[in-house]
Amino acid sequence: KEIAKLPKETLALWEKYGADESDDKESFQKSFIRHVTTTLARSIYNIDNFSAYQATAHSVRDRLINRWNETQQTHTEVDSKRVYYLSLEFLLGRSLDNALLNLGLKDNYGGGIKELGFTMEDVLDQEVDAALGNGGLGRLAACYMDSLATMDYPAWGYGLRYTYGIFQQRLKDGYQIEFPDYWLNFDNPWELPRLDVVVDVQFCGSVNRYTDEEGHKRYVWEGGDTLQAIAYDVPIPGYGTKNCINIRLWSSKPKRQFDLTRFNEGQYEQAVYEQMQAENITAVLYPNDNHMVGKELRLKQQYFWVAASLFDIVRRFKKSEKPWSDFPLQVAIQLNDTHPTLAIVELQRILVDLEGIGWDEAWAIVTQTFAFTNHTILPEAMERWPVPMIQYLLPRHMQIIFDINLFFLQKVEKAIPNNRDLLAKLSIIEESTPQFVRMAHLAIVGSHRVNGVAALHSELIKKTIFKDFIQFYGESKFENKTNGITPRRWLHQANPKLSELITETLGSKNWLKNLDLLKGLKSYVDNKDFRKRWVAAKLSNKVRLADYIQKATGIVVNSNALFDVQVKRIHEYKRQFMNILGVIHRYNTLKKMTSEERACVVHRVVIFGGKAAPGYYIAKLVIKLINSVADVVNNDNSIEDSLKVVFIPDYNVSVAEIIIPASDISQHISTAGTEASGTSNMKFVLNGGLILGTVDGANIEICEEIGDDNIFMFGNLAHQVDDLRHAHRYRNVPVDPSLQAVINDIESGQFGDSRIFAPLINTLTHGKDYYLISDDFQSYLDTQKLVDESYKDQEGWTTKSIMCSAHMGKFSSDRAIQEYADQIWEIKPVPVMTKKHI
Amino acid sequence: KEIAKLPKETLALWEKYGADESDDKESFQKSFIRHVTTTLARSIYNIDNFSAYQATAHSVRDRLINRWNETQQTHTEVDSKRVYYLSLEFLLGRSLDNALLNLGLKDNYGGGIKELGFTMEDVLDQEVDAALGNGGLGRLAACYMDSLATMDYPAWGYGLRYTYGIFQQRLKDGYQIEFPDYWLNFDNPWELPRLDVVVDVQFCGSVNRYTDEEGHKRYVWEGGDTLQAIAYDVPIPGYGTKNCINIRLWSSKPKRQFDLTRFNEGQYEQAVYEQMQAENITAVLYPNDNHMVGKELRLKQQYFWVAASLFDIVRRFKKSEKPWSDFPLQVAIQLNDTHPTLAIVELQRILVDLEGIGWDEAWAIVTQTFAFTNHTILPEAMERWPVPMIQYLLPRHMQIIFDINLFFLQKVEKAIPNNRDLLAKLSIIEESTPQFVRMAHLAIVGSHRVNGVAALHSELIKKTIFKDFIQFYGESKFENKTNGITPRRWLHQANPKLSELITETLGSKNWLKNLDLLKGLKSYVDNKDFRKRWVAAKLSNKVRLADYIQKATGIVVNSNALFDVQVKRIHEYKRQFMNILGVIHRYNTLKKMTSEERACVVHRVVIFGGKAAPGYYIAKLVIKLINSVADVVNNDNSIEDSLKVVFIPDYNVSVAEIIIPASDISQHISTAGTEASGTSNMKFVLNGGLILGTVDGANIEICEEIGDDNIFMFGNLAHQVDDLRHAHRYRNVPVDPSLQAVINDIESGQFGDSRIFAPLINTLTHGKDYYLISDDFQSYLDTQKLVDESYKDQEGWTTKSIMCSAHMGKFSSDRAIQEYADQIWEIKPVPVMTKKHI
Repeated sequence: KEIAKLPKETLALWEKYGADESDDKESFQKSFIRHVTTTLARSIYNIDNFSAYQATAHSVRDRLINRWNETQQTHTEVDSKRVYYLSLEFLLGRSLDNALLNLGLKDNYGGGIKELGFTMEDVLDQEVDAALGNGGLGRLAACYMDSLATMDYPAWGYGLRYTYGIFQQRLKDGYQIEFPDYWLNFDNPWELPRLDVVVDVQFCGSVNRYTDEEGHKRYVWEGGDTLQAIAYDVPIPGYGTKNCINIRLWSSKPKRQFDLTRFNEGQYEQAVYEQMQAENITAVLYPNDNHMVGKELRLKQQYFWVAASLFDIVRRFKKSEKPWSDFPLQVAIQLNDTHPTLAIVELQRILVDLEGIGWDEAWAIVTQTFAFTNHTILPEAMERWPVPMIQYLLPRHMQIIFDINLFFLQKVEKAIPNNRDLLAKLSIIEESTPQFVRMAHLAIVGSHRVNGVAALHSELIKKTIFKDFIQFYGESKFENKTNGITPRRWLHQANPKLSELITETLGSKNWLKNLDLLKGLKSYVDNKDFRKRWVAAKLSNKVRLADYIQKATGIVVNSNALFDVQVKRIHEYKRQFMNILGVIHRYNTLKKMTSEERACVVHRVVIFGGKAAPGYYIAKLVIKLINSVADVVNNDNSIEDSLKVVFIPDYNVSVAEIIIPASDISQHISTAGTEASGTSNMKFVLNGGLILGTVDGANIEICEEIGDDNIFMFGNLAHQVDDLRHAHRYRNVPVDPSLQAVINDIESGQFGDSRIFAPLINTLTHGKDYYLISDDFQSYLDTQKLVDESYKDQEGWTTKSIMCSAHMGKFSSDRAIQEYADQIWEIKPVPVMTKKHI
Repeated sequence: KEIAKLPKETLALWEKYGADESDDKESFQKSFIRHVTTTLARSIYNIDNFSAYQATAHSVRDRLINRWNETQQTHTEVDSKRVYYLSLEFLLGRSLDNALLNLGLKDNYGGGIKELGFTMEDVLDQEVDAALGNGGLGRLAACYMDSLATMDYPAWGYGLRYTYGIFQQRLKDGYQIEFPDYWLNFDNPWELPRLDVVVDVQFCGSVNRYTDEEGHKRYVWEGGDTLQAIAYDVPIPGYGTKNCINIRLWSSKPKRQFDLTRFNEGQYEQAVYEQMQAENITAVLYPNDNHMVGKELRLKQQYFWVAASLFDIVRRFKKSEKPWSDFPLQVAIQLNDTHPTLAIVELQRILVDLEGIGWDEAWAIVTQTFAFTNHTILPEAMERWPVPMIQYLLPRHMQIIFDINLFFLQKVEKAIPNNRDLLAKLSIIEESTPQFVRMAHLAIVGSHRVNGVAALHSELIKKTIFKDFIQFYGESKFENKTNGITPRRWLHQANPKLSELITETLGSKNWLKNLDLLKGLKSYVDNKDFRKRWVAAKLSNKVRLADYIQKATGIVVNSNALFDVQVKRIHEYKRQFMNILGVIHRYNTLKKMTSEERACVVHRVVIFGGKAAPGYYIAKLVIKLINSVADVVNNDNSIEDSLKVVFIPDYNVSVAEIIIPASDISQHISTAGTEASGTSNMKFVLNGGLILGTVDGANIEICEEIGDDNIFMFGNLAHQVDDLRHAHRYRNVPVDPSLQAVINDIESGQFGDSRIFAPLINTLTHGKDYYLISDDFQSYLDTQKLVDESYKDQEGWTTKSIMCSAHMGKFSSDRAIQEYADQIWEIKPVPVMTKKHI
C-alpha cells in the first residue's frame, strides 16, 4: 500500500498517535502496567515474577520494533549491498538483559521495576533461553549478528524456528537423559510473527522439459508436495546505535492442499494427526554437533530453509528493479558450514529455470554471490547426501548438481588434462554405491571464497580435506577469518563488576565498541587499587557460581579454591575424558598424601558442563564417568576438601554467562588439529581466566596475543598427529604409565561397577587411542602441576589475569566481522536515519 | 499476592497508569495505531485488511479484559452461587462484530476505522470462525453464554480448546472432502492464555487401599501418566451491561515427566514427535453430531476436560472457606449432554478420596450439584463406554461407578422389590460382553434434575429411553427447558436492517433484552411504510446472500425468486434426502410444463448447506446427490430459471448469519420424534422467514406461538412412527408412487451414473425406509404446492412474515436461561460493580 495514496486525515492520525515511546522510567512503568493489564490480561492482584518479566520484555519489544522499522526503512531507501548470513543454528540465549544493555535502558528499567515491586535480577531470571543451536557454530552466528548490528551493517540472518531447540539435559544416576526443550510453550516476546511473509516450498514431483517462446530448451519442476514457510523475525539490536537488524526464522506451516486419499472415511482424526506431523518439519533441531546425520528430515529442513530464504532475498532484490548482473553487487550470502549449500543450487535454478537466464551467466552470478565458511575437518562431520535421496526430494536440484559438476570437471580437465585421479577427488559426486553428493565440494565450487575459522585450521584445510582444490584454484580462494566473540554479552553483560571496573579505569565505555582499547589496562597492572578490585570481581563471580552449583547440584564448593572449568559439547576429540582421567590421577595422589602434605596443595574445584548428542554412546559414558568420579571424590572426607568435582547439568548460554566469569583456569585440550577454533577459550580469557590448552585452534592465536607466560600449553602438535595415530594402529605403543595407573583404578571398581566403563577404556586400548590421550597424558599432568604452582603465587596470577584480558582485542567478533565485510562481502555500514513514523 | 502488602508507591503507579481506556473514536484510533506498531510489529507501510482486523480486535480485547476483571472481582466479592456450564462444544463463530455491538462500540469504531483507511465490513470479514462444535448443541451453549452474560448471571463455561475445530468442508466433483480447520494458526485475540492456571490430570495407574489416621479405609489413585491442562479464557460480554463472563477452555500440555525408555539412543527426534502426539489430546474435535464415537482418545478428552474443570471449581469454592455442605448452595453444574458425565464420578472421588468425606454425605453433595440436559433420543447417539477401557484409563473412577450403581440399585430394590428386569433396565452397567457404562443412566442417577430441550422431546424421553426411571423417581425429576437463541447475534447482528426497523418502530432497543416486546410489531402489520421497509430488508438480505452464493459457488441466482433453505448437519433423520427428492419431482414437473405454464410458477432457489460426519457414508452420498441434481438443473435452460439448486460449502456460524435473514421458507423436516428441538427453525422465524416443517421438536411450540396460519406443517406424527416402521419392516408397504417416480428418474441416469446412488436408494427400499420418507412424501409435495400458492400472494406472505417475528419472544435464550436459573440452578443476577483498577 503506497503511503502517497493515503488520505491526509489518515496520515495525520499516524502523525498524532504514532509517536515514539520514550525511554524514561515513567514511560516504562506506564507501558509495564499497560502490558500487564492488556497483553497479559492480568491485574495488580496476580502478577508473579514471570508476568513481570513478560511485561518488561513486551515494553522492550515495543522499542525494538521502532528501531527495527527505522532500520529497515533506511536500508530500503539506501539500497546498498546487504549480507545474508545463512545459519541452521542461532544460539541466542536470553534476550532481555542484552536488549536493555544494548539500548541503554537498564538503569531506568531497573529503577522502574523496583518501584513496581520486583527486582531486575528476579525478572531477568524468568527468561527461557532461545537454544536453537548445538554449540560453537550456533553461538558464533549469534555473536556475529550482534557485531553486524553494532557496526551498522545492513545484514540479515536466516535460520529455522525450531519448535524444540537443543534438548534439555538432565542427569539420572549420573547418566545424561534428554528432554524436549519446550521453549515456545509460553509466550515468546522476542519474535515478530510475519503472517504475511509466506513462501511456498516444493518437494518431490518431477521435472519436465519444454521449449519456451524464444525456442530455448527449459526445465520446469512440477507436482509433488508443497509446504509453507512462515517468517518469524527476531530483532537484533546493536550496542550504542539505532541499528536493529533481523534474523528471519522460518517455521513450517501446512499449505491448504492435501493428499486427499488420507482423508478416508472414519480416518479423519488419524489423518489430522499424520498431517500435523508431516507439516511440522521444523519441529526439532538435530542435536548433533560436528557429526553428520543422514536423515531425510534433516535434508528437508535444509532445503525448506534455503528455498524460503532465497525466495525472500530474490524478492527483495527484484524490488529495486536492477539488472540481474547487479545481483552480486547487491547481495552477499555467507554459508555457515555446508548446511545451506543447497542455496547455491537453488539460486542457479531460480536464475535458469524461473528467470530464463543462460547457464553461464547465471553461474557467474551465483559464484560471485556466495562465500563458504568451513568449520571442521573431522571426517564424521562432512556432509554427504545420497544421490537417490536428493533425486526423490529435489529432482531438479539433482540435475543441476550433476550439471554443475560436469561443467566444473570439464574446466579442471582443461586446466590439468588427463588427471583422472584428480577429477575423482575433486568431483562433487562421490562414486560409491549409492552415489553421494559431497556438500563441501559443492560449496567450494559454488563460492568465490572459502574460509577457515582460525589460522591453524585455515592452513590445515588447505593441506588436508581441500588439498586437491588448491591444485586447480590456487591458494587465493582459501583464506582465514579467525572467529570472534561479542564483548557486549561475554563481558559487559556476563561480568558487570569487571565491566564497570574497566569502564572506570579506561574512562569510557568505548572499549565495548573497540576492544583493542583494553590494552589501556596494561598501565594499571601494578595499580594496587585496580588489582584489588580486579581480584574482588573475580571472587564475587566465583561466589555467584558456587551458589549456582549448590542450587543446581547440591554440591557445596569453596570459592577460594582454584576453579578449573571445562564446558563445551562432550566429544571424544575435545577430550573431557582426559580431564576426568587427570582428576582421578589427582585424587589418588591426594589420597596418598599426609594431611601436612595436603595442606600445601592448591584446592581445586573441577567443573564440567556440556551436552552429548543423544546417540553418541561414548560421549554419554564420559558424562557417567565424570559423575561417578564426582560421587566418590566429593564424599571422601579423607582428602579434606582439597578436590571437588562438579558436573553442571544442562549447560547453555545463560549458564555459560555465570560460569565463564568465575573460572581461574579453563581447559581447551582437544587433540591437536581437531578443534577448528573454539570460542569459549576467548570468552574465558577476556574475563581474566587463564587457559590450559593444547596447541590447537584459536589457542594458538590467543597465545600469540597474550604471550606464552600467560597461558599453559602442552601436548603434541598437529603435524605429529598422523604419525602418532599410525604408530597406535600398526605398532604396539604401550599406554602411558600414569594413564595405565588410572585405568587400573577404574577397572578396580574404585568408581563403581567397572564393566560400565569398559567401552570407554576400550577406546584407549583396543580402540587404538584415536585422540591420543596416552601421548599427551604425561605432558598434561605436568602442566597441571605447573598450574598449581603458579596459582600459589596469587599476585603473579592476578598479573597474568589482567594481561590476559588486556590483550584480547583481536578476538572481538567486531574484528572478525570487519574482515568478512571488507574482504569477502564488500559491504559498507549504513547508519540508521531516524525519522517520523510516516 | 496481597494488595495490602504492596508499598504505597506501587499502588500509586497503578492508580496513575491503570486508567480505563475510553470508548471514543480517538481512543480507538490511538489504540489501533499502537497495536499495529507494537502488537503486530507493522507500520503504516504494510497494513492489510487482516492486520487492520487484528488491531481492531486487540483494541476491543483490551476493553473486554477490563470488564472481565471487574466482573470477576465483583463475583469474588459477592461470592453468591455460580453456575458452571460444562459443554464439550462451544460454537462461537466470530467475535469482533458481536463484541462491538454488545459493548456499544460499533459506531465509534466504524467511524474511526474509516478515517484510518478501512471499511468495517472488510475488517469484520477477516475473522476466522471459532468453530469448536458440530452443530446445534455447541451453538446452543454459545447462545446460553450470551444470555447468561447479558442477564448478569455469575456463570462460567468450561470446554476444550481444540487445536482443530470442526473440519472445513470443501466440494470436489460434488463430494464432500474434509480439511483440518487451522483456526489457531494465526493470532487469536479472543482468548487469554492463563499460563498460571495449570491443572495436572492423571491417567492409568492403579488404586491402592490404606487406612487413614482415624482408622478409615481410604483409596488412593497412584502412578500412571500425567498431562497438564492449561486454561485459555474466552471473555463473553453481555449486551448492554458491564458483565463479561468467561468460557474457560483447556488445552493439553506436556508435564515435564516422561516415559524415559522412549528416549533411547538415536531415537531422539522420533521420541519428540511421539511425545508431541501423546501430549496433544486436545488437538481435534470429534466431527460427529448425534452419533457416539467409542474411541479411547475421545474418552481421554472427556476426562481431561472434566478433571481440570472440577479441580478449578473446587479450588474456587475452597477459597471461600465455607463448609462442604454449602457446596451445592454455591455451585450448580449443568451437564450439556452426557459428554461431561464423568464429572459426577470425579466430584465423588474428590470428596471421598481427597477430602475424606463419607460416601453418603459426599453423594448428597454431588447429586444436589449436578443437573443434566438430554439432547437426543436417537439410539446411535447414546454414549456408552466399555468397562475395560474405563478400568484401564481411570481405574478409581470405574470402582466408584460400580459403587454408585450398587447403592442406587439397592435403593431401587428396596422401593420396588423383586423386579430384576427393572434393575437390569435401570442399571448404569449394561451387562453385555464386554460390559458397558451407560452414561445417560449415570447422569440421571447423579443429578437432581434432568431436562429435555423442547416440549415434545421432554415428553418423549419420559416415555421412551428413560421410561423405567419414572417408575423409581416419579415424574418430577424430569422437566422441559425449551431451547432458545440469542436475538443479539441472530437478529441484531445478522440482520442489521431489520433490527434497525424494529428499534425505530418500537421506539427503543429494549426488545433486545426483552424479546416479548416484539409483540409490539403486530400493531404495525398494516402500516404501509413499515411493510415496505420490512420487505425491503428481506430483499436486501436476499441480494447479500445471492452475492455470497455467486462468490462461493459461481452459481447466479435471482433474488426475486423464493429462497427455500435447508441448512443444518447432514443426517438421515433430518431428511435432506427427502428435500432433494422433492426437488427432482419439481424439476421434472417443470420440464413437462409449457413455457406459458411455467410463467405462472413461483421461481425457486433451493439452498442446502451442512457438513456430514467424515465417516457417515450415506450422509455424504446425499451431498453428492444434491450436487449432481444441482449440476443438471442449473444447466438446463429449458426450465427458464424457474429452479436453481445450490449447495453452499462449509456451512458455519458466519455463513448462517448471511443465509438465515435471507430465507423466505426454511425446511425443518425431520422424521417426527427424532429432532429434539432444533434452534435454526427459531432463527429463521425470528428473521421473518416462514417454516416448512414436520410436527417435531420446537416446530410444534413455534406453531403454537405464531399460529398455524403462519407455518406449513405436514407429515406423520411422532406417535405413529413406531407403527409405520413396523409396517415397513414386516409388511411389504409399497413405495409412494411420486417417490417411486423420482427413484426411477435417478436410476435412469438423469443425474449421472446411477450406481453411485444405489446405497442411498437402497435406504428407501431394502433398507425399510427407517426415516419414513415414503410415508411423508405426498404430504410434503402437497405442502410445497401450498407454499408456492401462498408466495404468490406477496401481501399475505409479508403479513405472515411480520407475524412470525412478532410472536417469537418465547424463543429468546434469555427466557430459557431464566427458567434454568430459577428452576434448576437457583442462582441470582450479580450486577457488576464498577471500580478502580486497584
